Parts: sequence; structure tokens; C-alpha cells
Amino acid sequence: MASIYGNNIKISIFGQSHSEAIGVTIDGLPAGITIDFDQLQNFLDRRAPGKSRYATKRKEADKVEVLSGVVGDVTCGAPLTAIIRNNDCHSKDYSELKDCPRPGHADFTAHMKYGAHEDVRGGGHFSGRLTAPLCIAGGICKQILEQKEILIRAEIEEIGGKKENFYEEIESAMKDMDSVGGIISCVATGLPVGIGDPMFDGIENRISQAVFAIPAVKGIEFGSGFDAARVRGSKNNDEFYIQDGKVVTKTNYHGGILGGISSGMPVTFKVAIKPTPSIAQEQDSISYSEQTERKLSIHGRHDPCIVPRAIPCVEAAAAIALYDLWLSATGKGEI
Amino acid sequence: MASIYGNNIKISIFGQSHSEAIGVTIDGLPAGITIDFDQLQNFLDRRAPGKSRYATKRKEADKVEVLSGVVGDVTCGAPLTAIIRNNDCHSKDYSELKDCPRPGHADFTAHMKYGAHEDVRGGGHFSGRLTAPLCIAGGICKQILEQKEILIRAEIEEIGGKKENFYEEIESAMKDMDSVGGIISCVATGLPVGIGDPMFDGIENRISQAVFAIPAVKGIEFGSGFDAARVRGSKNNDEFYIQDGKVVTKTNYHGGILGGISSGMPVTFKVAIKPTPSIAQEQDSISYSEQTERKLSIHGRHDPCIVPRAIPCVEAAAAIALYDLWLSATGKGEI
Amino acid sequence: MASIYGNNIKISIFGQSHSEAIGVTIDGLPAGITIDFDQLQNFLDRRAPGKSRYATKRKEADKVEVLSGVVGDVTCGAPLTAIIRNNDCHSKDYSELKDCPRPGHADFTAHMKYGAHEDVRGGGHFSGRLTAPLCIAGGICKQILEQKEILIRAEIEEIGGKKENFYEEIESAMKDMDSVGGIISCVATGLPVGIGDPMFDGIENRISQAVFAIPAVKGIEFGSGFDAARVRGSKNNDEFYIQDGKVVTKTNYHGGILGGISSGMPVTFKVAIKPTPSIAQEQDSISYSEQTERKLSIHGRHDPCIVPRAIPCVEAAAAIALYDLWLSATGKGEI
Amino acid sequence: MASIYGNNIKISIFGQSHSEAIGVTIDGLPAGITIDFDQLQNFLDRRAPGKSRYATKRKEADKVEVLSGVVGDVTCGAPLTAIIRNNDCHSKDYSELKDCPRPGHADFTAHMKYGAHEDVRGGGHFSGRLTAPLCIAGGICKQILEQKEILIRAEIEEIGGKKENFYEEIESAMKDMDSVGGIISCVATGLPVGIGDPMFDGIENRISQAVFAIPAVKGIEFGSGFDAARVRGSKNNDEFYIQDGKVVTKTNYHGGILGGISSGMPVTFKVAIKPTPSIAQEQDSISYSEQTERKLSIHGRHDPCIVPRAIPCVEAAAAIALYDLWLSATGKGEI
Repeated sequence: MASIYGNNIKISIFGQSHSEAIGVTIDGLPAGITIDFDQLQNFLDRRAPGKSRYATKRKEADKVEVLSGVVGDVTCGAPLTAIIRNNDCHSKDYSELKDCPRPGHADFTAHMKYGAHEDVRGGGHFSGRLTAPLCIAGGICKQILEQKEILIRAEIEEIGGKKENFYEEIESAMKDMDSVGGIISCVATGLPVGIGDPMFDGIENRISQAVFAIPAVKGIEFGSGFDAARVRGSKNNDEFYIQDGKVVTKTNYHGGILGGISSGMPVTFKVAIKPTPSIAQEQDSISYSEQTERKLSIHGRHDPCIVPRAIPCVEAAAAIALYDLWLSATGKGEI
Repeated sequence: MASIYGNNIKISIFGQSHSEAIGVTIDGLPAGITIDFDQLQNFLDRRAPGKSRYATKRKEADKVEVLSGVVGDVTCGAPLTAIIRNNDCHSKDYSELKDCPRPGHADFTAHMKYGAHEDVRGGGHFSGRLTAPLCIAGGICKQILEQKEILIRAEIEEIGGKKENFYEEIESAMKDMDSVGGIISCVATGLPVGIGDPMFDGIENRISQAVFAIPAVKGIEFGSGFDAARVRGSKNNDEFYIQDGKVVTKTNYHGGILGGISSGMPVTFKVAIKPTPSIAQEQDSISYSEQTERKLSIHGRHDPCIVPRAIPCVEAAAAIALYDLWLSATGKGEI
Repeated sequence: MASIYGNNIKISIFGQSHSEAIGVTIDGLPAGITIDFDQLQNFLDRRAPGKSRYATKRKEADKVEVLSGVVGDVTCGAPLTAIIRNNDCHSKDYSELKDCPRPGHADFTAHMKYGAHEDVRGGGHFSGRLTAPLCIAGGICKQILEQKEILIRAEIEEIGGKKENFYEEIESAMKDMDSVGGIISCVATGLPVGIGDPMFDGIENRISQAVFAIPAVKGIEFGSGFDAARVRGSKNNDEFYIQDGKVVTKTNYHGGILGGISSGMPVTFKVAIKPTPSIAQEQDSISYSEQTERKLSIHGRHDPCIVPRAIPCVEAAAAIALYDLWLSATGKGEI
Repeated sequence: MASIYGNNIKISIFGQSHSEAIGVTIDGLPAGITIDFDQLQNFLDRRAPGKSRYATKRKEADKVEVLSGVVGDVTCGAPLTAIIRNNDCHSKDYSELKDCPRPGHADFTAHMKYGAHEDVRGGGHFSGRLTAPLCIAGGICKQILEQKEILIRAEIEEIGGKKENFYEEIESAMKDMDSVGGIISCVATGLPVGIGDPMFDGIENRISQAVFAIPAVKGIEFGSGFDAARVRGSKNNDEFYIQDGKVVTKTNYHGGILGGISSGMPVTFKVAIKPTPSIAQEQDSISYSEQTERKLSIHGRHDPCIVPRAIPCVEAAAAIALYDLWLSATGKGEI
């Protein structure tokens, strides 16, 4: 089911880096929701390429074209499909890779899984470019949640292990023809108590499943996360008290989630992003056709650090997961 | 969908800590698989309570009773259901909790979500006891994978932040009427290249969704995980070479997964387990009925550290996820 | 996915005719629903064997045993599992069938699909006995719908092509060591306008998927059904008018469903039930082991007509489908 | 979930009659399948409007535009998305219908479900036009099945109750400013034994769920269907014999399906299509805004009989269902 996500809404992502278009269908959106498409475009522009000197030089307007699901700017109950045309494809850049997988990329596993038929151009369906339709779907869910005063906001926590001077780290990596990763933290505020389901459909389960759709994500932790594993229960437990007639916790080590369900405290999580695997330095790889080892130098346009562009993607993944769970608790209000 | 997991097999877990029984149905198991039920019982015994002085004193034989799906010990194509009777329930221990949620537990969120109707006894459906049916399903999937020479093995990596003297840490926490968490690492070897799907059904997505069904898990990382976020691409990329005619990587920072798909290298991940929230120390909580703050002292039987008992649970979650993905790949002739 | 049904609730049916038990898990029931278990037992008794001279002589108390999901008789938000023990199994009756498939039964297809591993005893998972857990789930959904004043009622429309003297037809077939089928009509009243979704999740799609789980069902039609195919549009269209401030139709050829969605008129459908394939007359079959043709005489206990016992099963299938769609439109009201 | 279908492949249909485009995503197609897009276009042309004097005068080239999922004409493992642009939209034809529902259409139920937000133009997502993307997906599945020598073929069985002179019936209805329905029969040959799963995922369940996505379908029967309900078991049972070393049945009243699973005999079913609800005759309807009864005369372009154009749609629905089930069986090594 690969590229489909959700129980109450279903997000179906399609496209390859160099196919005619990339896009997404959202099935199950309630009718009558006004979408601010300018705001959606702004959201997408946060991840778009070609916007800064640290990002890939690929120039894509990444203009969202809505094919269905709205009348004007209001949802009509039918599946909403939006696409982005792929224009600036330099497919010739990738011809060598058909025979020689890039370290750290999905080239090798895609080749083995799909045989000679995989779309190697630009990373095909595995390309970071596919986070654009994720952001379309997530941007819409985020707007809907905002109408319910549920706000989602991600930011950079670390780049290359440093908690400050993020761009200095990136500059330094660029100079070394290298790349660098980082950590993004995300907070969702305003969630009512009771969102999420036990076992496999808890908030952690569902955000995780969505977030790992972002290429380069290698870890996720909620609340105090891995730090929780290193302290005592008396330290990690969040005690309850009453504030303005509501039960809240004094601290938020639990990251707003108890038993998979929202506690009313901010939902917090952090995501580890690995360094961009495409680097200009020569690397060791192999040739499928000759079954020999060989050297590989990757040319073309690549981000030295994708962490800044991944911020809206993390927000998008969280928004999709939380809105889907929100609908499970409340329904669509159609009758 | 809450307690159901899987695309090709469907694992449906049921039961509460103090209901008549807990159990699981596995729908979609191929016919003709011989299950070693003694081995399955041994696997379950690794998580069973009452086995050591560090685990809860609740005494449950946890004997698996198979209701359907096999003829003798061979699967017949029908859904396999197995249950464990709940015998040693001290329901009176929990009467106080109906009005006063335990910090760090799902008591509060369950109460808010299900109203006065939640089953508060022993944590209800949120109890760690529900990992027993997870282990039944996972133990069966693990056996099937072993027949294909795919082996899954988890072990303790840290307790309370220490990489050695695990039981000293637990003893120390016990003495302080406290609890302690830890980190479990897990390795799956023998996976062919090509297991897993892009986007939402990659190995990371699917293992995460399963692993967060284990109460107390607060984080997961694959391969070098959060460390990957702190190094350069030239360090984190795993270069390819040819060994015995097969393409392999020199290092395994990617944890055996590229683009969500198995690379043939061992799949590795680590899981953060928070300290048991039930501690004997007095804690601050509230009273629903009186809408006041109050003190809570938790009595009853609890593990000072659930990490040792969580080891088979982590293996079970991984086995379910990987076998489900394995079936997806074989259906399409991808492996 | 085979034995699992539903989007908002998930019904997971398990068991074989001669396994330890048969049963069902309902995942996703809202908390706080009071179930009348006596009424449920009465509902099940309508399909239970051994109750009349026309039904199989198999004596099964078919007592529902609830394993989980309730506190007392109120749902608690956790999956509800209920089982029925199989007691009166004459497994020796079926030994011959391991080598010789009964015409009209699933013996042959199960044998080919599951190899020698299928559970041939009593029809295994294909037995009409598995409609008992369908009725448990359906009986519960029916009660919930009744609390919303949505009533479902099925009845016999024809037996053996006759619209009256149903039991005369059955007697006549019995005397001839033969069996007879029939048609069941079903009506659901009180559904609000707006239940059901377009395309694949319309009321017709979803009731059909559920109803064909009843062995022996070979056809289904909604509203005027096959008769609609034989009249003009001017005759088949149901014109609108206003009654007590509500828009209704003058006729109900559409069976209460337009575009897959309830119109507020009664939902009506009919189901064709084939004659019981087990008949005492000698029939032609084959031997797998000898690869020769042979004669088969079926002994044992069988219904000459299963139509009367199928009535609650049709109601159950409709109730599951409609309640699941109802939840899609309204949600669980948890927040 | 509405517009998504399938377990192993997922068909996601989008678009409204007058939206920018209509289309479909097929997720889960194996890589390496060559699609003959000319043949696919020919298949679509069988349902296209404007081709005969009996069909709607709407002129749509209905040219399939592939956005993703192939390299050249070979699938690459990524989701395949194809769209058809909507060009010849006369949206002004439908302005009146915003306030006055057409008898027999989904206008009323869509209005009640989606409020004022539904897309009333051309029937929106409920339009018969949405069977074009169904045919894209089905045409592809049909080609894949043909490569496995599984052939699907539908034809008209009856128009307006007559088994011959189909076009005379249609002419007669046209002359009367009326419409007429009919029955389509469909046969799938070459299916190996063992396709389909018990209970909810049998061939009958799954074809039904797909076929009722075609607007105007009001009934379905498999094998002898409703006739089976009118004969004795001794007549309806299909006896086995051995032909060329294979077990086959002498007759095929079971329609190639026993216990939901293919028997190796041709899979046969019939579908009832109601007369087109749009007729030129004046009909009774109501005004939402004035809450009064009123007369409605439908102008615009409509088919007097959609049965001929529904033939490829029935084949498409069957192909999608059978290929999805085929993948399920091959994954488990059942066929």
C-alpha cells in the first residue's frame, strides 16, 4: 500500500522525480472546508528547491494545480487531487547511476526490488521531491487543524550536532564537498484530550509511520524520548494538578501523549535527519553490469543539508497524522 | 482500527488486564505452516510476569490456548486465534484509581476519551499485559521467518543510562521505591534485499508503528539513528563493494534499510523504554469527583524496570512487521 | 484480509466448524454502549442449529462467552471479543471428505488453495457455522442502531420459487432427500439521509460485501433490483415531494439509496440463497488420491433448507455494514 | 475510504464531472509490466460519450494522460496515475439543479450529506463520467490478467426486459422521451483454482464491492444467482469429474466460485442496470430554497440507455477485483 496513508482520510501520493507530474489525492475530506490556496503555496515554498544557496539548484516553481475535490476554494466531499508539474528535469545527469548505485541512496534497493525497471532518474519515487505532495496534503490538514486552534510548528534543534550557528555548519560542510544532518523538533498545541487510539493507532505510532515517509529520517522520539530511558520514574512521571478547572501536568516529559492518546499538553517530538547522501566527494561503489568495484563522483544539483527544507515536511506529516486521528474521535459531522 | 495491524496478515489484539482473557487473531497466515507451540510458550515465558524479583509479583501461567486456525500444529488457512486466561486479577487494588489517575499512565487519557466507561482495572486495554498477545503473534511470525533463515534478536543496550551492571541499576531503583528505564537494541539478519515499500510502508515506518504498541516506548532509531544527525555525509554513507558475488556495504550506518527497503545488511534499530510509571513513592495527582488535588501512593504489584520483559516484545513487533512486508514482496515476485 | 470487515469498526471473525471455538472481535466500538446480552442470545438463537425439524440435528447451545471489551454489560472502548465453544463435533463424519469433495461445497477449492492442510472437518472456516460470530457482531450493531431508532428486519420472500407455504416446500424437498433454496428480503428503516459514501463505499457496495460472507448467498438486489433493468426510467424514477417538512419520494424503487447514500426512505434489498449443497442423494464426485471418478453419499446432519436460519444472518450483515457507515458520517463522539 | 479499493493494489479514483480532470492512481502495481496504451485507449473508447446516437452528446476525447508510474510504457514500481482532462463542460446546464434534485439521481443525497458544498455540476463525483478512471484502472488490470491468459468479457444480456433487438428498445424509449435499463453478463475464463479468500474477501464479495461503484447498478448475481433460489439442491449442485487430469464440474451453476474461491470453471455473473434517471419528460421534484413542490424538466445531454457504455465498466470492475485477489494468492504461494 506503500504510498497511501490514513484511516479516515486517505492520502495517496504519486509521481517520480522526473515523471510528468507529482501529486496527491486526499480521499475523505469533509465537504465545506475553505482552503486558503495562497497560504498552501506559501507552505510549499518553505520546502521548495532553488530558494537559497544551501539548497539544490533545481528550479521548480512547484505551483500547485488542483484537479478535483473543490468548488472554488471549498471542499465538496469528493477526493481532492492536486499536482505539481515536473519541469526542470536534467535526466541526463542520472544516466550513469543506472549501473552504479549512490551510497546512502535507495538506488541499490530499488534496483534489486524492481529489477531494471525502476525509474532511476532523480531518485524516482524515492526522491525527496515526493515530499512536495506530502506537504500539499499536510498543508491542507494543517489549515484545517488551525481552524480548530490546533497549531503545529517545527524548527531546527541541531545541525551537525550543534545547537547554534546552523548555517556555519552547513557552510563548513559545503566547503568540504560534504553534507550534514540535523535534528528537527516539532510541537502541536491545542489538541483536545482524547485524540489517538490504543495499541497500533496511538499518536506515536501514527506520527512515526508518517514521518518516516520523509527520506533521510532515521529516528524519532516523543516527549523526553531517549532521555526518558536514562532517568528514574520519579523524575520522568508528570504529576497532575488542576489549572483553570482543567487537569494538566506540571511537566511534559510524556510529550502530550499517554497510552497513545493526547493528554491536552503540547504534543512534542524530535526527528533525526541524516546528512544528504549525495556528496561531491569520490566514493566507492560497484558496477552492476561489470560486477566490479568502481569509483563514483556525484555531480548535479544537491542540497548540502536538507534539514531546513525538511521542516515543513515534518509539520506536514504531523498534521496528516493528527487530523486523521482527530476525525476518528469526532467524525465528519455529515448527519 | 486501534488494535489491528498489517496489510497481508492482520493482527487483531484484544483483552484488558482484568477481562476474562486476552488474545490475538492472525488473519491471513498461509496454510501448511508448522508452529512449534512449545517454542512459542518459551518465547512468551521470556515476558511473563512473576519470573524474577525485578518483575511484577502477578503470577500468571500465561498458557497459550489456541482456539482456531490450526489442525494439530499446522496452520489450515483460517484465522489463527489464541488466548490467555486472566486468572490472578486483584481488581480491588485498582478501585482508588477510578477517581485518581496515576502519573505517567494512560488512566487520565482513557478516562477522558471513554468517559466513566473505561476499564480502569489493571490499566485495562492499555496494560503492559497486552504485550502477551503481541508476543503470541510475533512469536509465530518469528518462527516463520526463522524457517526462511531470517533471525531476529533483541537485547538490552542500556539500563538507566548505564551500559553495564544492568541489574545493579534496577536494584538501586527498587531500593529507592523508584523505577528505571532503558534502551533495547534489535537486529534482524538474513533478510533478502527488496523487503519493504516506499513512503508509508518502508521498514522504518512499519516497525515503528508496531513498536510503539508496546507501552513505555518513547523513541526509536534505525541504524546510526540520532547519531547520523550529528555526522557528515562522508562519514555516514555506507560505500558498496562486492563480496562473494553479492553487493554489500562496508559499514552499516543505514541499519540495513535504504529508501524503506532492506539492503541485505542486518536491519538494526534501538528502542527507548521509559521507566515504569508505577512507583511506590507518593505522587501528586487529582480527584475527578472532587476536582481537587490530592496525593497518590500506588500499591500493588509492579516491575521496577520493564526493560528485560520488553525484549521479546520488541522482537515480536519487528517479526510481525517484517513478515507482513515479506508477504507483500513475494506476492509481486520482488524477492 | 479475508475474515475482517469494516472501516470504522473492524469485525474479525475466527474459528472453524470443529475447532475449539468460533468467535469474533469487534474493534472500534465506542465506549459507553450498553449491550443487552439476553437479547443478543435470543438473536443468535434464531440461527442456532437443532431448533426445528428442518434444521441440522447438530446440538449446540451456542452460548456467547464474552472475553473482553466490556465492564459489566457496557463497552469500555477496548475491542470486544466473544466466542462460542464447539462442543457437539462429530469429526469422524467427515473423514471421507478429505479425499472426495462434496458438490456445491467449498471442499474442492479449499483443498486446492490450502493443499492438504485445510480443515475439512465440518467445512472448516467455510462452514455455515461461522455465521454465528457474524450474528454476534451483527446483533450488537443491530442493538446499537435500534438505540438510534434504526430498525433492521429480514423475512422470507420465497422458498423454492413459492411465495407461500414455505414449509410445505421444505417438507417436500426433505421427502425427496433433497434441499431447497429461497429469497430473503430485508428492510432497514429510520436511517437518516446521508449515510454511505460514493463509489466503493456506498450502501450497496458495503452491504454486498458483508452479505456474500454468508455461505450460499448467490445474488443481491437493492430496491427494484433486476426488475429495474426491465422498466423505463419514467416508471423507475422516484419523484420527490414534501411530507411534514421533509423531502421524501412517492415510491421507493431506489431502495432508499441514491448514489450509494441513504435517502431517508427505507433501505430495501433481497438476497438469493441457493439450496443446501449437502443432500442425501448419491452424487458424482472424484477421489484426489486415486484420481478417479467415484460416487458420494453424504451422511451426517444437514439442513434441507437454510433459508430460515439465514434470516438473522442477513440482518446481521446489514447491521454491520450500516453501523460502520453510520460511524463514518458521525464519528464516535469521543471529543 | 469511499473512492479507494483493493488490498494488494489500491485504486484511488478522483475527479468530478466538471472538475479540471478526472483520474486514478493505482498503487502497488509490480514493476516491469508492459502496458499497451493504445489498447487501453481502445478499451476506454468503448465507454466514451459521443460515439453513437444513443449516447450522450457530450464530446470528450477522453485521452488518457499518464502522470507517473511508468518509464516509457513499462511500470516502474511507483504508483501509476493517469488523468483525463474535462473539456466539454456545459456547467450552465446544471444551475437549476442546485435547488431542485433530479429524481433517481444522487443530487438529493449529495446535497443532504455535503450541505450546500456539493459539486452539483454534471453530477459531480457521482457522475457516470467517473467510470472513465475506473476503466483506466480496470483496463490495465485486464491487460495484466490477459498476460496470464485470464480473459474477461462482458456483453448485453437484456435491454428493457428483451433478450434481442436491443437497439429497437432503446429507439422506442428515445421516441417516448424516456430511458431504459438492462442486464449485462460477464465471464472470466482462465482463472486458476484458488483465487479468492473466505468470508469477506471471496470473489463474490469483492466483485460486488467494485461493481456497485458503477452508478445505476442495482443488482448482481453469480452463477445461476436468483434462479438458484428457485431450484432443488440436486439440480443446482455441480457434480465433479476428471477431464484431462483436472477436476472440473459437469455444469457451472456455481459460476466458478465455491466458498468465495475460484474453482477453475469460468467465473460468471450478471449485473442489473437501471434505466438512466435523466429523462426529458417532466417530473415532480421540490425546491430546497422555497420548500415547495415543483415540476422539473431535464434538458442537456443524456444517454437514453447507458447499458452499452457500461459493458467495459463491468469488465473493469471485475478485472480490478480479480487481479487484486490474484496478487493475494500468489503472495502466499497458494496458486
